[in-house]
Formats: sequence, C-alpha cells, structure tokens
Amino acid sequence: MLRPVSLLFGRITNSCHRTLPSTSCVRAMAKSKYEYVRDFETDDTCLRNCYIVVRLDGRNFHRFADQHKFTKPNDDRALGLMSRCARSVMEELEDIAVAYGQSDEFSFVFKRSTNWFKRRASKLMTHVASQFSSSYVFYWKEYFGEQSLLYPPGFDGRVVLYPSNRNLRDYLSWRQADCHINNLYNTTFWTLVQKGGLSNTQAKDRLSGTFSADKNEILFSEFNINYNNECPLHRKGTTLIWEKVDETLTKKVTVPKEGEKEVTVTRSRRKVVAHYCDIIGDSFWNEHPDILEEDSF
Amino acid sequence: MLRPVSLLFGRITNSCHRTLPSTSCVRAMAKSKYEYVRDFETDDTCLRNCYIVVRLDGRNFHRFADQHKFTKPNDDRALGLMSRCARSVMEELEDIAVAYGQSDEFSFVFKRSTNWFKRRASKLMTHVASQFSSSYVFYWKEYFGEQSLLYPPGFDGRVVLYPSNRNLRDYLSWRQADCHINNLYNTTFWTLVQKGGLSNTQAKDRLSGTFSADKNEILFSEFNINYNNECPLHRKGTTLIWEKVDETLTKKVTVPKEGEKEVTVTRSRRKVVAHYCDIIGDSFWNEHPDILEEDSF
Amino acid sequence: MLRPVSLLFGRITNSCHRTLPSTSCVRAMAKSKYEYVRDFETDDTCLRNCYIVVRLDGRNFHRFADQHKFTKPNDDRALGLMSRCARSVMEELEDIAVAYGQSDEFSFVFKRSTNWFKRRASKLMTHVASQFSSSYVFYWKEYFGEQSLLYPPGFDGRVVLYPSNRNLRDYLSWRQADCHINNLYNTTFWTLVQKGGLSNTQAKDRLSGTFSADKNEILFSEFNINYNNECPLHRKGTTLIWEKVDETLTKKVTVPKEGEKEVTVTRSRRKVVAHYCDIIGDSFWNEHPDILEEDSF
Amino acid sequence: MLRPVSLLFGRITNSCHRTLPSTSCVRAMAKSKYEYVRDFETDDTCLRNCYIVVRLDGRNFHRFADQHKFTKPNDDRALGLMSRCARSVMEELEDIAVAYGQSDEFSFVFKRSTNWFKRRASKLMTHVASQFSSSYVFYWKEYFGEQSLLYPPGFDGRVVLYPSNRNLRDYLSWRQADCHINNLYNTTFWTLVQKGGLSNTQAKDRLSGTFSADKNEILFSEFNINYNNECPLHRKGTTLIWEKVDETLTKKVTVPKEGEKEVTVTRSRRKVVAHYCDIIGDSFWNEHPDILEEDSF
Repeated sequence: MLRPVSLLFGRITNSCHRTLPSTSCVRAMAKSKYEYVRDFETDDTCLRNCYIVVRLDGRNFHRFADQHKFTKPNDDRALGLMSRCARSVMEELEDIAVAYGQSDEFSFVFKRSTNWFKRRASKLMTHVASQFSSSYVFYWKEYFGEQSLLYPPGFDGRVVLYPSNRNLRDYLSWRQADCHINNLYNTTFWTLVQKGGLSNTQAKDRLSGTFSADKNEILFSEFNINYNNECPLHRKGTTLIWEKVDETLTKKVTVPKEGEKEVTVTRSRRKVVAHYCDIIGDSFWNEHPDILEEDSF
Repeated sequence: MLRPVSLLFGRITNSCHRTLPSTSCVRAMAKSKYEYVRDFETDDTCLRNCYIVVRLDGRNFHRFADQHKFTKPNDDRALGLMSRCARSVMEELEDIAVAYGQSDEFSFVFKRSTNWFKRRASKLMTHVASQFSSSYVFYWKEYFGEQSLLYPPGFDGRVVLYPSNRNLRDYLSWRQADCHINNLYNTTFWTLVQKGGLSNTQAKDRLSGTFSADKNEILFSEFNINYNNECPLHRKGTTLIWEKVDETLTKKVTVPKEGEKEVTVTRSRRKVVAHYCDIIGDSFWNEHPDILEEDSF
Repeated sequence: MLRPVSLLFGRITNSCHRTLPSTSCVRAMAKSKYEYVRDFETDDTCLRNCYIVVRLDGRNFHRFADQHKFTKPNDDRALGLMSRCARSVMEELEDIAVAYGQSDEFSFVFKRSTNWFKRRASKLMTHVASQFSSSYVFYWKEYFGEQSLLYPPGFDGRVVLYPSNRNLRDYLSWRQADCHINNLYNTTFWTLVQKGGLSNTQAKDRLSGTFSADKNEILFSEFNINYNNECPLHRKGTTLIWEKVDETLTKKVTVPKEGEKEVTVTRSRRKVVAHYCDIIGDSFWNEHPDILEEDSF
Repeated sequence: MLRPVSLLFGRITNSCHRTLPSTSCVRAMAKSKYEYVRDFETDDTCLRNCYIVVRLDGRNFHRFADQHKFTKPNDDRALGLMSRCARSVMEELEDIAVAYGQSDEFSFVFKRSTNWFKRRASKLMTHVASQFSSSYVFYWKEYFGEQSLLYPPGFDGRVVLYPSNRNLRDYLSWRQADCHINNLYNTTFWTLVQKGGLSNTQAKDRLSGTFSADKNEILFSEFNINYNNECPLHRKGTTLIWEKVDETLTKKVTVPKEGEKEVTVTRSRRKVVAHYCDIIGDSFWNEHPDILEEDSF
C-alpha cells in the first residue's frame, strides 16, 4: 500500500516558509487563500431602539388548502397548527414579545431593545421562517390526525422596523383590520354557497361592490347569523403573548421520620398564552402593559 | 335577537362622505388609516448581475446530533437527509444553478441573471430556509426509519453576493476546503478514539498543533488508513446540479387494430444530480460549462 | 459638402421595424439598449418616523487650519464661517429642524416626518455636503477678508437615524460633551503654551492623565482664568434653529390725495437663529418645544 | 473671584467610585453615557469587486444657468469649469480611474479594487460632492472672469455599483448616448431660434415628434450645418483619465568647476487628461487598456 499523496490543490501561489512544503501547509494556505470571500458579506443590523417585526406568509397556500381539503371559510385544524408553530417559534427564539396571526400569516414582534443575533435581519427572519416551517410538519399530526401531509410547505418572510409604540400598534391594527375584512367576506361568501345554495360565481357576484354593513345584513336577515357572535378566533385572529401562569403540581417528597408524602406545590411560570380579542383599541394594551416598552431608553 | 352593532373602532378621524356613517365605512376607513405602516418596509433587492448565494447552517446541531445519536465522524443518514432537503429546495424554487453542502450547512447559488422574487434578499433566503426546514421533518423517516425526531430543528440563513465567476468559485472552494480540513480532523480524532482507544481528551491533545500531513500520517501508519481512499461524500461534500437525464419507461398504449400494447419510451428530463468530487480545480467546471454564466451580459 | 452620415454605434442588435433603418432610429435604440444599467441603483430610503441626522466633518482640517493660520485654540473667523455655511444649508434645504456645530463638524437634523427627497439618504447627505462646501468658499471673504483661500476644502458626511426624541437628544448631548472636553483641553493646552511659555511637548506632557477638574484648576490657579466665564461659543458650540422674528421696515407707499409717504411695517418672519447654550439639560428644549416632534404620529 | 464650579450636567446616574465625585469624573461619565448613539450608525460598505460610480447632478441648474446668462445651447465657460472641478476631485481623491461629464452632470468611476474609505458609500459620495462643489466656487473666476457668482450652487450625488466591465461600459455609453440626444436636440432648437428666427414655442413645435435624422436634416439643409462637424466637446462630452505625460523643464544646476548651468530635464508624470471622443465603441478602451480591471481577481 502506497503512502497517500494528496494533490488537492493544483496551483499554489503563497509560499509557506518551510523548506519542504508539506501537504498540510498546502491545505491551510488553500483555505486562507479563499477566505477573502467572507468580505462580501454585508452587515444588515437592524436600527437600534425599533421594534423588529418578522412576518411570515404561506407560499401558494390556496393550492395547499385545496389539496389538504381545508374546510371553508375557516379550518380550525389549520389555524390551530399555525398557532402551535408560532408558539414553538416563541419558545425557541428569544425576545419575541407578541405574535399575531390570521389565515396563513403570522407576525412576530421582537422587543425594541432585543440584541438577539446582534439584531441581524437575515438571522432573525431565517430563524423564524425555519423554526415555523419545521414545526408545521412536526406538529401536523396533532391537528390533522391520520390525514397525511402531501408535501413540505413553504413560508416566506420579511423584516419591518417600527420606531414607536404607535407605529407598532398601527401595524398590528392593520393586520387585524385585514383579518376582519377578509373573514367577514369569506363568512358571507361561504354562507351564501353552503346555506344559500349559490354557486361560487353567484356568491361572488352577489358580494361584488358591497360594504361591510351589507354583508352583516345578508348574514343577519337571510341566515339569522349575527356576525358579532361568530367565533372570536375567526373574527379577531390569534394574539400570543407571554404570561405568568400559576401551576399546581403534586409531587412526592421524603419527610424525615414520616417517610414519603405527597405535597402540592404551586409555582409561577412564564407561558405563551393565546388571546382572541380586539387589539386595535386600548384595553388589551392597558391590561398587558409589559408588552410594549417606553419609546425612549 | 338584536341587530348586530359593531363598534370595532372607537375614534374615527377621517370623514366618510355619507350622511349616516355605516359600520362598513368605518371599517374600510380603519384599515386604510393603518396602511401607512407599509411604507416602513425597505427594499432589499440584490445587485443585478451578481450570483446570489444563500447559505443555511444548522442551529445548535451539536446538541441535535448528540440527541439523535448521529454516528461519528459522519452520519450517512443525516448527510443523506440534508441532500434530500437541498434537492427539495432546488425543485421547488427557481433558478438555483448549483448547491454545495457539507456537515450541517448547505449553500444555494442562484443564477446571476435570476429575477426570482425580483431578487429580493429577504424573500430568497426565507423561502430557502423554510423549504429546507419543512423538508427536513418531512423526509426524516426516509433516512432515520423508526428512530423518531425529538423536536423540530432550526436553520439560519444569510445572503451573499458574488460579482464574478472567480469570486463564486472561490466561495465554493472555501466551503470545500473547510469540509476537507474538518473531515480530516474528525476522521483522525474518531479513529484515535474508536480504534485507538483514546479518550476524547487524549485524542484532542494528540491532535493539538498538528498539520494535515501529520493527521494523514497517523491514519496511515497507525491504522493503515489511506485518507484519500475514504468515502468521497465525506471528503468532498455534496454538489448538486441540474443535468439532463434520459429516462426509459414502459407504458401501455392502445394501438388501433392491435389492442393494448406495451411500449418503451425514452425521454430526456432535467434532474438534480449529486456529485461528490473536487470542485476547487477546473475539471468539474469544464465538464459542466452551463453552471456558470458569462461575466458580462 | 457631403450629407453627414453618422456611424456612432457599430453593432446594432435590435431590429428597428423600418425598411431603411435611419440613424435616428439607431440612436434611440442605442440609448434604450443601455438603460438597463439604471436597475443597478439601489433604494436607500430612510426608515419613516425617525430623525435623520447628517453630520459633516472637515477633511484634513488640521492641515487646513495650519495652512490658513487659524488662531489657537479657537479661530472665530473659522467658526463664524462654519455657522454661515450651516445657515446657508438650512435656508436652501427643507425640513432641517436644528443644527449643531463645533470645531470642524456640523450636524443637521431633519424632521422625523420629513419627506424631502423622499427621505433618500444619498440625496440628503450629498446635498448637505455640497451646499455646505460651496458656501464655505463663497462666504470665505466675509470672514477672512483679504487672507486668501489656498485651495477648495473638502467635507465628508454620513447619515444616522434616531427613532426617539431621547435618542436624538442624546446624540446632540454626545456632540456637545465632545465639544466641552476638547475645548477645555485645547484652552488649557494653548494657555500653557501662549501664556505659560511651555513648548507644545511640555504642555502635552503636563496635561497627560489629567481630569477636567485638574485642567480647570490649572487655568484658575496659574492663569486666573475661570473656564466657565470663557466664551460660550467655544464652550458650548453653535446651535441653529428656526425662530419667528419680528422685522420692522420702512417703506414708501403712495397714499391717494397725499402722495408718497413713509410707513413703518412690522412683520413676522422665520429666521435661522444661533444659540450658544447648554443643550444637554431640559431648559433649551422646554423653551423651544417646536423643535422635537411627538414620538408617535 | 470664586473658584469655578461646573454644573454642566444635572442628573448623574452612574456612580463614579470616588468618595467625592469631581466635575471631571462627571463629565467623562456624561460623554460615555451618550456614546451608545454611535451604535445607530449603519454600515454601508460597497460590495467588493464592483466598480463604484458616483454621479453628481446640478441642483436647479436651469435656473442657475439663466441667472448666470449661460450661452445656448452650450456654454464653454460652464463646461470648462465642470471639467476643472472634476479634475480637482480626481487629484484630491484616490482611485478614480475615469470620469465622464456632460451638461451639469459628472460621473466618477472608482477602481473595482479600491479600498478608499473602506468602500463606504456615504464617505465616497459626500467627499466627491463636497470637493466638486467647493471647487466650483473656487475656480469660478478662472472661467467666468469678472462675471460674479450670485450664490453657492448645489449638486446632489448617488452611488451605483457595477459588477462587470460590460455593465460599467454600458453605464458610460448610456450617459454618452444621453449627451448625444440632448445636444442634437439643443443644437437644432437654438439654431432654429437664433438663426432661423423662430420663437421658443415655434422651435419646440417644429421639433416635436422628430427623429435624430430629421434634426440632422434640418441643420444640414436649412442651415448648412453638418452636425458631425460640431465641436466634439459638445457632441461627446468630456472623458477624464490618468495618463503618463512627459514633462520637459529647464532648471539651473551648479556643476563643479563650471558654475551654474541650465539643464533640460524630462520626467514622466501621471496627469489627468481630457478626451472628447466616442467611448461607446471599443477603440477608446483598446487604446487605454489600463482603465478597466479584469473581471476576476
């Protein structure tokens, strides 16, 4: 057996300051010769003292929903799974103060003072997108049971910065107003189809040019549905925040002279909690004053 | 039952040009009132005529590898799965000309002329990160069989631009040189531990300060291993490119007057093909002249 | 005389849809053929709702000061000229709310709500740098009289964004604290040299390692100088803001039946006004509440 | 006289680890307390291995030209001054390989390998804008003699990156094609007005919808002007490059035993040289092969 001779790299340009250049020397040189390519990376640090919002959107989710037979106008399994993934993101990644989701989108708000990943936009958004996507497949079964996932889904993401509390709240209001408008439309559309016997085209024509009040009226007078009593999850979307929760658990302890004994222990733990309420008005924010930080630091 | 009255939004600032402002009007206004937040999004279009490289790295993969009992120094199931996910990315996303992976990282090179997602960096990198991550869970079973995945893994990504063919090739050479250096170290380290009976600390001390040539020598003289004969997948990493492949398939056709008949059809198809070879020298690039584009357009 | 034939462009690639391609057609094509290069421009819009600060610094101003025999430690002609140029910038460019200058630097603060030049960073900073520099030469004579300017000076600039009022005030405090520290040092140094008879090196050694209190003490006990009574312009730098100023002017008007008559008219005008006061504490800001905008909009 | 007590900063938050906090300590703290604002600066390093083009455009130069009575269609004093300023920029700033100007604009091309100012876009463009603008006022008299400059002019700038030689040449071709189109229009327009006796409106109407060939024809058949014989400076704009020039100078030297003597010395020097030729075709670039660098490094 011959002693191995490695000739990995053909042309060697830097001299190696040894009488007999060894292959090791050759290789170390080779790597350092290429390392200049790191200088092509650019810095994408997010401006300090701004909220960093990462929003994910499902890719081709119309097709995905059809292929997986999502119920219309809302599929609670799919919404539950989205929420589960968002919780997974919040538990894995640091410094997300609040997340808001509806339909196939979810927004994650990092604290304005976060220094996670040195505030590098690319790291923040790819991590969120990655953790969310792997969770989607991982937790699929918990929500869809035996119905199988046909292919791995994709989500795209973006980063947006908001310098003030007002701007951030307006961003979240924008998303919740979008949820409201879409859900009212979809609820009316599918009621017309499913209960009213209209075809998709007929329902679309019927709703063309109508205002929200008209849709409320259709639901109320024709189908006896008060839209405001519809499921809050569908009307308001899902808001996830961290809350202190008291947990009571029973554990066995060994007490001297008494032997083993069951004790009830209560302890406080931070937990991701879901809310399905209005976040446009002030009440939610007054009730949870810790989510937003002071504008100045 | 009372007619629903919606009071979603408290303070209304814009007038609505109707005698009796209806709730629908209120809502439409509300959304448009918030829409200014879209102007906070920034444009992150990648410079034209540059290769766009998206590199993914596993998050906390040391821990992940331990918890999932990856074999040392290389786990072929894990490497196979990485490759499968990279293929999924190439098949789902357009305009990736070549991808290179090793260990827990994978680099995807978009054509310098791509206009996919209008060259927006955030879209490109989050899509790659997302598709790769959901594929990782989706295809896990194909590579790890009954061994279960304990939690959804995360990958982070970045975008780097390379203006010339030389720069791009140097980037790929840098990653392959890194693969070589790490794999030689790991192979020697684990051979010392697994065959030489050294503890991890002893092996580490033994290798401290050694050059590649020394490691080659240890493997050869002490364990009769010629490093250059080790598995190319481990030494060179995985290079994925698109190739035209002839596929022969047998299908049943109905021929008039003869009835049903089996016919063999050959057709050419573009397919992602894996290579485990040197990509630092010129031969690989000479053999696949279509990967790189002319510097000028 | 021959009819001119233009052969500006050798190779014509796009066909021109005319039987006989004319030179005009050739040229129009030629320009549009190159226009793709505009797509290489990148968008550098500044994040909304942030203060935009453009800071200019003199290039090689140590040399410039020596060659133009600036008096030490402060040259009032040079400081006056800097101020004059800053005023020219504020009068020419819109939406600068406050400017602060000291030594050879000047910072310009654009309103957080400005939309001047669509908030494009490159436009904002090059305009400021350009206007300031041409003004420097233009107004030189007003401050330096017959002493001639030896060569055109250069200034470099940068853009920094501040999301909150606190951040902006801290930025300005940082610059004024810098002014204080430098001026106390320079005042003591040049007093030691000019009145104390020390050489430059001796003065430097004497001050090495001293705190501000030590310098105050040297000035007071050795030279009977109370630093706090020194010229505020030198100690505090120059703060320029817009103020309403009443102007009284006499003009001739023609009154029917009385003929021409002199009338005194008072009118209010916005004018750039200089202050040489502390801007670290609250009083300046309380006295001029219009400079800063509410954090939220 | 009382010992000065400085109360520069009201509220002191950090403790100073000295029994009696001195004012010096207070001040040093104060500055460092504010220094966090530096972290708000963002990195704007230009991508490596790309040409960096800084283009300046005159601000409101239509008005400026009118007020300073520039001759139509071209004012050679103004063009000469622009050129002089561009030379000043090239001589003061490093690594500009070529500059091209026409009308009230000038483009400066930094070498693709330049590391001047660490390739920071803001520094590069503000320096160019500043040096150009101060030069404009400084050299005004050399071109406009006793006609006085009414106010300091402004120029705005931008940075554009070009990854390949082809892209860069196309950029310059785009600017020269623009020069051609505008100059042919202006030449014809002002000939119609100045020699043809048309009003501005009549000339405008006459040219509306015409192609270049039509304008050539008007000039030739109506005014006996062959556009191709017009001044190259006007038709082609100004291209500035560095060239080696032999300079012969006579100096007095003292020769032993012969006394003082006049000697002629020739030495080679790099100098900015102006060309008024086509830069769209290959000849200019073939004749000056040093301007462009290889695409790869």
